[in-house]
Parts: sequence; C-alpha cells; structure tokens
Amino acid sequence: MSSTQSCEIQIRVRYAECDPMGYLHHAKYFEYFEMGRTELLRQNGHAYRDMEATGTLFVVARAECKYHKPIRYDDVITLVTEQVRVTRARIDHHYEILRNGIRLCQAATTLACVDRNGSLQPIPDSLFTSHPGSNYRS
Amino acid sequence: MSSTQSCEIQIRVRYAECDPMGYLHHAKYFEYFEMGRTELLRQNGHAYRDMEATGTLFVVARAECKYHKPIRYDDVITLVTEQVRVTRARIDHHYEILRNGIRLCQAATTLACVDRNGSLQPIPDSLFTSHPGSNYRS
Amino acid sequence: MSSTQSCEIQIRVRYAECDPMGYLHHAKYFEYFEMGRTELLRQNGHAYRDMEATGTLFVVARAECKYHKPIRYDDVITLVTEQVRVTRARIDHHYEILRNGIRLCQAATTLACVDRNGSLQPIPDSLFTSHPGSNYRS
Amino acid sequence: MSSTQSCEIQIRVRYAECDPMGYLHHAKYFEYFEMGRTELLRQNGHAYRDMEATGTLFVVARAECKYHKPIRYDDVITLVTEQVRVTRARIDHHYEILRNGIRLCQAATTLACVDRNGSLQPIPDSLFTSHPGSNYRS
Repeated sequence: MSSTQSCEIQIRVRYAECDPMGYLHHAKYFEYFEMGRTELLRQNGHAYRDMEATGTLFVVARAECKYHKPIRYDDVITLVTEQVRVTRARIDHHYEILRNGIRLCQAATTLACVDRNGSLQPIPDSLFTSHPGSNYRS
Repeated sequence: MSSTQSCEIQIRVRYAECDPMGYLHHAKYFEYFEMGRTELLRQNGHAYRDMEATGTLFVVARAECKYHKPIRYDDVITLVTEQVRVTRARIDHHYEILRNGIRLCQAATTLACVDRNGSLQPIPDSLFTSHPGSNYRS
Repeated sequence: MSSTQSCEIQIRVRYAECDPMGYLHHAKYFEYFEMGRTELLRQNGHAYRDMEATGTLFVVARAECKYHKPIRYDDVITLVTEQVRVTRARIDHHYEILRNGIRLCQAATTLACVDRNGSLQPIPDSLFTSHPGSNYRS
Repeated sequence: MSSTQSCEIQIRVRYAECDPMGYLHHAKYFEYFEMGRTELLRQNGHAYRDMEATGTLFVVARAECKYHKPIRYDDVITLVTEQVRVTRARIDHHYEILRNGIRLCQAATTLACVDRNGSLQPIPDSLFTSHPGSNYRS
C-alpha cells in the first residue's frame, strides 16, 4: 500500500526565532517540520488535536536535518512535508525548505505512536487511508 | 498574615534565547520568572510538578516587565523572585534581574489557581504556610 | 498629529508553543505581539528587517499582558495590533487576541528606538507618516 | 592529532520547554546540545561569545537526535557533550542525555566555521589545542 502524501506550507520567519547571527536558529526548524506534519494530517482529514484528545499520541523517535543555506528574519519560506513510509510501528517524513526555488535544508523524522501513558501502540488504521477529497497520491 | 518570601537564582543566558540584536529576547524573561517561581515553591517544600499531578494548577492572569538594560548571550544574571501577596484568589510575585549589582529589569505577575478543567479554585492552604527550614520571613 | 493605525493577523497556535497544561505558554504571547508590530509596519510601507539593516532598531522598554481565557494548540486566533501613540522617544501599541469574537487577552508595549550600540535615538520621521494606500486613520 | 574532549552539565527542565504531552519538546534538545558545546569550549579556555565578537562564527551544518525515553518538566538531566572530530572544515560532536544512569537520547552535530558574511573559513588553530588545566584527553 502506498502512503506517499505531501503538503506545502508558507511560513514567515519571526524575529524571536532568529539568533544573534541573524539566522533562524537551527532548533526552530524542527518546530516548522511539526507544523508541516500537522497540516499534512489536516489535509487528509485528521486533526492532531483530536487524535491526542482520544489517546493517540505521536512522539518523535528520530530527527535529522542538513542545513544547506541560512534562513533569515522575515524570509517567507516554503516547507514541503512528505509522508514517505507508514508501518504499524512508525511513520517516516521527509522535509525540504525552499526560498525562490532554492533548497535551504533537507530533513527527516520518524514518529512512533504511544498512548497517554507513553506505551507504544500500533499506528491507527485511519492513517493508512486518506480522506475523500484529499490530495492523496497513490 | 505575611507571605513575603523570596529566592535568588543564577541563570546563564543561552544563545538560542537571544535575538538578532544579540539581546535576550524580551519574551524569554517571562520563562525566567517562571523558573524563579518554581524555585521559590521548592524552597518552601513544594514541587510544582507534584501540585499539577494532584490537580492544583496555576495560570498567569497578568504579567508585566520593565526592561531597563539589555541582557546578552552568556551573561550570568541573578533573578530575585519575591512572593509579595497571597489571597484565596491570587498570588502576586515581583521580580528583578541583576548583573554585577545593576538592576536590568523589574517585573510582576499575578497567578490564579485552577483545576484540571481550567475552573478557578481557591489557592491551597499549604501555600499560606511555609516549610520548616525555609527562609520564610514573617 | 494622530498616529492611530491598526492591523489584524490570523495565527494558528503551534504544538511547540503550548505547555503541559495544553495552553499557549504565557511568554509566547509576546512573540505574537511582535509579529503584529512587524505586520503593522509592513502595512505602512516599512520592513523592520530593512530598518535594522540601516541602524534603526527598536527595543521593548515595557510589556504587559492580561490573560483572560486560555488559548490552545491548533486554535486559530486573531491578533489586533494598534499603534496608539508615537512620540520622538517612544511608540505605544495595544493588542487584543480574539477567537470567535471573544477577547482572550489584552496587552500593551512601549518601544524605544536605539542605534546599533544600544544608544537611544529619536524615532525616525518616516514612522510619523504613513504610506499611501495604507489603512492609516487620521 | 587527537581532539577528543568531553564535558558534563546538569540541566533542570523548564516548564516552558515542555509540550502538551508533558515532555521536553523534541526541538528543545538541540538548544541543550548548544549549551553543552558552549561549556565544552569554555572548559578549554574559549568563550564562544568572544569568538563571535572577533568574527569566528560556527553554524550547524547537520544535526541528528535519537529519542529513547521521554524527559519531563523539572527533571534534572545530565548532558554529556563530546568533541569527536576536528578538521580544518568541520567539528563533530556527540551527545548523550542521562537521568539516573539511564540514557534518554543520543545525538550528533556537525559544525562549520563561517565569517560574519556567512562565508566558510577554516576552523581556527586555537581549537586544535586545549587550554592548560582542561580535561583534555589525548
């Protein structure tokens, strides 16, 4: 079963997110990637907020980013989030940030699904199928 | 009943907390004040983590800060946190940040106590009395 | 001379901005207010990024917020930023955050203008006049 | 030439750093690693603040973290930072976070050295040798 899905969001970089070098701080990128995942879920008919409320929580098991070019305050960047693999145990995403068609970073995360007590649980079925009307690509 | 209590903590300013001007970002001060409150509680025998676990949560109802002089990356500052008033409905704290005896800011917050559903509840009795051995000043 | 100006922006609350209570952390509000100021400047033909590059920097001299109702992860809130007073020495802004027409907080800041060395300088003339096409209200 | 060096710091997790799950947010770990690097430099006689002031800036070219067990508000964790490789072009660090002897995460970063304009420059000689009295291990 294919699970390739992707979404694109625009983000304007905030002053408070930039460091004394004037660059978007490297830790902040991971908050952006989380925003990308939230929007990708939404696009497929899921609200992560509701999932958490019903006891389906995702934790980041692994995260990696390669920083190619700096990002600055007030830049409007494009974040491309792609769900590249879903198994019963984990979800893998890839990310790219672009500005004017130039790739500024590449990243990847692996999520695991846990219950409210932090115990691993299988990824819910609903994440294997997409919502009617989503831009799911098989 | 007096409830004046104070504590002093040292904080080294992190790179990620500073903005493109090279200054500690003005929003971050409020995280420092929260650290001061946590340590003041601890000094009086309370762990805020345990209070939350048992359903006693504090929310900030009002916060104010006057910024006198900038604070920079790697500065070691002294935060003085003082509990200036406790009623059944609220707790008021004052704060000062100093470096080398020079006052860099002055601030104040008002907390209210809520339960897990966010409903206001009276401040617990235990916060009106201090722990033996604390530096409670009557 | 009147300097009343206002702008409205929508912000979706990020997961990383919320605390263990599930609420937008009270310090984060001040980052939102800064975003409001940036957009208000832009609406009047100024890019704060360019102002900083040419040596006109604004520092927050005072900030205050009254928190009326909590804001949660994934909420889409409306931030209203209003420039209420400009003198040679300072700029005052007021802020409100609303959701579904309900006011969630009220806040105020005072900015001062400094040069690259942190020395106070007069607010530039250009901030006293507004850009053609802005929604400047006299 | 060997450049293995390590340092250990204790960090108490702040409330504002934790997310609605009650865990230290995964992006925040990278701020901790940066603190580790700053202290490792200091231990070897360097202040990163002074290096930046003289035009030697480090940027993160790559960062990765494997999250084994969650970290919670008010936990006191131990961060072990190790400089594992220095070449003319880059510095590699490894990191571990422990609590009560249990490893909670493992991470790695690669830094590059740039000048004030963001152009790559060779890693300064002084980072290849250690300060007398440091716990440099050859």
